[in-house]
Amino acid sequence: MTVVSKRVRLTPDARREQLLDLGVRMLATRTLDELSVDVLAEEAGISRGLLFHYFKSKQDFHRAVVRRAADDLLARTKPDMSKDPTTRLSLSLAHYIDYVLANYQSYISLVRGAAGSDEALLEIFEGTREVMTARITDNLEVFGVQDSPTVRLMARGWSALVEEAVLGWVADQQLSKEELLRVLTATLPAVLSVG
Amino acid sequence: MTVVSKRVRLTPDARREQLLDLGVRMLATRTLDELSVDVLAEEAGISRGLLFHYFKSKQDFHRAVVRRAADDLLARTKPDMSKDPTTRLSLSLAHYIDYVLANYQSYISLVRGAAGSDEALLEIFEGTREVMTARITDNLEVFGVQDSPTVRLMARGWSALVEEAVLGWVADQQLSKEELLRVLTATLPAVLSVG
Repeated sequence: MTVVSKRVRLTPDARREQLLDLGVRMLATRTLDELSVDVLAEEAGISRGLLFHYFKSKQDFHRAVVRRAADDLLARTKPDMSKDPTTRLSLSLAHYIDYVLANYQSYISLVRGAAGSDEALLEIFEGTREVMTARITDNLEVFGVQDSPTVRLMARGWSALVEEAVLGWVADQQLSKEELLRVLTATLPAVLSVG
Repeated sequence: MTVVSKRVRLTPDARREQLLDLGVRMLATRTLDELSVDVLAEEAGISRGLLFHYFKSKQDFHRAVVRRAADDLLARTKPDMSKDPTTRLSLSLAHYIDYVLANYQSYISLVRGAAGSDEALLEIFEGTREVMTARITDNLEVFGVQDSPTVRLMARGWSALVEEAVLGWVADQQLSKEELLRVLTATLPAVLSVG
């Protein structure tokens, strides 16, 4: 008697998670526009119809994938509070750079595509930037500055500086990763102290 | 005998310019998605068909309007080389802030919508940022720093910081315009000097 290998039956939640993970992996090397439902269904070995059982629409699927990518980014860059402030910032930035290097397209989708006309994607982008900015503004004593609207605006501006500098660096890589890390770590206190 | 007022017959180039100006004005209070060909044709008092005589497609029209908005922004913020460096930077930033205040939606279309999946719009956005960054890197002696890949990356990062800070400021306006101007002017040498 031959044992026929059978696809493992997953719970709906587990299947949805699996599809999101696959979507994020596929987005690492594709733009959001290129992430079609057909290609995902084929890669996942399920029908297009079944995919729409888990996600209402292509837009709904895209939003869920971008949210998952944003959650991944936040988890990877979470500051290690057991370290001293400078090491903590430097480690968090190093993980950020590594994430952008490994997930360039999904990162672009998060910061650029997400910044387009889809309000839900824009919210994910804004929410991600808010969490990253709060990691700074919740620990201002480390930088020896007082909380103020100006300092908060500069913390937000610094997040944009990092995003732009890392994207520019990935494109031309004219500095070593160590030099990029050094300069980004040094700009934060420099920017906050003018507040 | 009644004199019938007649629509002035414009040359094709003049008409195209007029349509672009109208498009930019309309974009001041609308997103790019809301800038439909129908609405523009109605405002301009011409037929949809005639509009497509000047612009090949809706996408072509959108690109031309965003390019015009980018050119306007660059013209308004052009540094006045007759002023001393600090005044020059401060004036240029003040014009930038005024431009974003007066043209919020078209500015969002330039930096956010443009940053989406349309490659041509992305190029306009990148080109605008390059011109703004070059205004800094062409005058580095003013800041007492040597040209280097690090300094160039930081100049680019600072442009993103300004963009993000001004957008954040327009949304909540928790600081006075003078304070915003002061802090933005101060961050540039601070960021360049860590390079």
